Amino acid sequence: MAVYTEVSDEDVRAFVAQYDLGDVVSCKGIAEGVENSNFLLVTDKGPYILTLYEKRVDPADLPFFLGLMDHLAANGLTCPQPVAGTDGVALRSLCGRPAVIVTFLKGMWPRRILADHCAGLGEGLARLHLAGDGFTLTRRNSLSVGGWRPLFEASRWRADEVKPGLADALAEELDYLEAQWPQDLPAGIIHADLFPDNVFFADGKLSGLIDFYFACNDLFAYDVAICLNAWCFEADGAFNVTKARLLLANYDRIRPLSAAEREALPILARGSAIRFLLTRLYDWLNTPPGAMVKRKDPLEYLHKLRFHQQIRHIADYGLDRS
Amino acid sequence: MAVYTEVSDEDVRAFVAQYDLGDVVSCKGIAEGVENSNFLLVTDKGPYILTLYEKRVDPADLPFFLGLMDHLAANGLTCPQPVAGTDGVALRSLCGRPAVIVTFLKGMWPRRILADHCAGLGEGLARLHLAGDGFTLTRRNSLSVGGWRPLFEASRWRADEVKPGLADALAEELDYLEAQWPQDLPAGIIHADLFPDNVFFADGKLSGLIDFYFACNDLFAYDVAICLNAWCFEADGAFNVTKARLLLANYDRIRPLSAAEREALPILARGSAIRFLLTRLYDWLNTPPGAMVKRKDPLEYLHKLRFHQQIRHIADYGLDRS
Repeated sequence: MAVYTEVSDEDVRAFVAQYDLGDVVSCKGIAEGVENSNFLLVTDKGPYILTLYEKRVDPADLPFFLGLMDHLAANGLTCPQPVAGTDGVALRSLCGRPAVIVTFLKGMWPRRILADHCAGLGEGLARLHLAGDGFTLTRRNSLSVGGWRPLFEASRWRADEVKPGLADALAEELDYLEAQWPQDLPAGIIHADLFPDNVFFADGKLSGLIDFYFACNDLFAYDVAICLNAWCFEADGAFNVTKARLLLANYDRIRPLSAAEREALPILARGSAIRFLLTRLYDWLNTPPGAMVKRKDPLEYLHKLRFHQQIRHIADYGLDRS
Repeated sequence: MAVYTEVSDEDVRAFVAQYDLGDVVSCKGIAEGVENSNFLLVTDKGPYILTLYEKRVDPADLPFFLGLMDHLAANGLTCPQPVAGTDGVALRSLCGRPAVIVTFLKGMWPRRILADHCAGLGEGLARLHLAGDGFTLTRRNSLSVGGWRPLFEASRWRADEVKPGLADALAEELDYLEAQWPQDLPAGIIHADLFPDNVFFADGKLSGLIDFYFACNDLFAYDVAICLNAWCFEADGAFNVTKARLLLANYDRIRPLSAAEREALPILARGSAIRFLLTRLYDWLNTPPGAMVKRKDPLEYLHKLRFHQQIRHIADYGLDRS
């Protein structure tokens, strides 16, 4: 639940006066997103989203994120687009924070994942990967294989508080991943955080993707592996192969996975599992219980990691070798 | 910050299908309100507010609250109006909770109170008191003088944890208020919780009142006293007599206060101070520090109580005797 910055009515009005958006009708904090303060801004021209970037976003990355949204939209992907002021500038500041108004997207994110959602997701993810082609800015993925070791070291001494033996299990897995991580797979712009709350559906069809604040240059198939973890496990921990099959088949239809990408899925899924396990573990150990943030359970991702460690054939993901 | 209930996209769509509002475009939880779950619902017909009533609202009171909003709107007050479904029914249920869709109000509540806001408030409060005339349902004010003693007894044994001597000070004040509380002043429908976050302004003018979930039958001047406390003290604790004068003069212009109401303002303001002091004290002592709710400081209202205890002449509120 977000909204970290309280914005006054005068501040909003003065801010919106810099745009060709008419008068402010209303501006309400939204209880969504965990990294930034988000407001649903209604002006004479309709609804928009006003975002204030809080401290977890590096301002130096903002030109990449905003440029990417423009680039993706220009290439046919439905995603929020930064709105420029009358001076042509989209990135401004409000209440001492970088701030931007983006277009409003139709739809809601699915609270209960159905198989059909995974089909739409697969197609949307592949279209995102294609739409990123030609974007000239780049951003390194600080949360890929090279970033896990320092994250682990920051939590290692307390990891066993969460589960006895966790530190050793993570150390062993990291050794494996660092040695075996694939290097030569197709790469480009990936979303890197495409959880259900970042994917909108309307009338059962995917209506847009949001929240590009982890987007970066990395392996396309790693993004697919992130989605397998985020969308294809049930609340009881069971892997739903029907969902995985629909996700992969619909991805494949738009951007066919190469044989090498398919064979790499188990290790990429292990990597994706440890990436979210490590950030959740860090937040778990470093978020005071009294903070107004809901902590996410790191062990959910230990369970997913264990699942992928057992995978011997990609048929277990619903994929044929091809 | 609210939104206690997570509502799925399917649930929202099925719910809205019972209305003549077209399709759901979007539905986002709002980070406002502390008693209920509120969502900004956008349909083909425009924006609405969807409210789910959580456990602090007694469902038996809902016909009073919803009927009151209809009555006030029919009498020219700008406030949210319950929207009826195609079956003519406004109060339904969603996710196991009573739920209602109300109309969307233009404007924002003022984060920084200016003197002009208090002028608009005074007029709006008087118009509310007049507009309530003729409403046939009634609701006792459980948080007026008769309700304070049990609330105090629930916190008495721990009050001194918040401030040494607080229990004795409250007991003494309650004895005074119970003995001296005025009985024969003009009464009718009051809002009883008209804090700045319940009053919207657009372009500097009051654009509407919201959140009638404490509304009840009680003394009109008690509602005025609640506003004096909620709007006319600065963050440093100073009483701003300019704001009070504007509030009272603009109230008086629409509904003149009688001599008896004017003379009663100091005791009504003491009563209003102890009412919010007692509920905040109770919440302070009974909200675990880890809860995702921001606790309000009870001592802010002890300070206000002390101020009103010193009042000897209503001129101190910016009022002439008349």
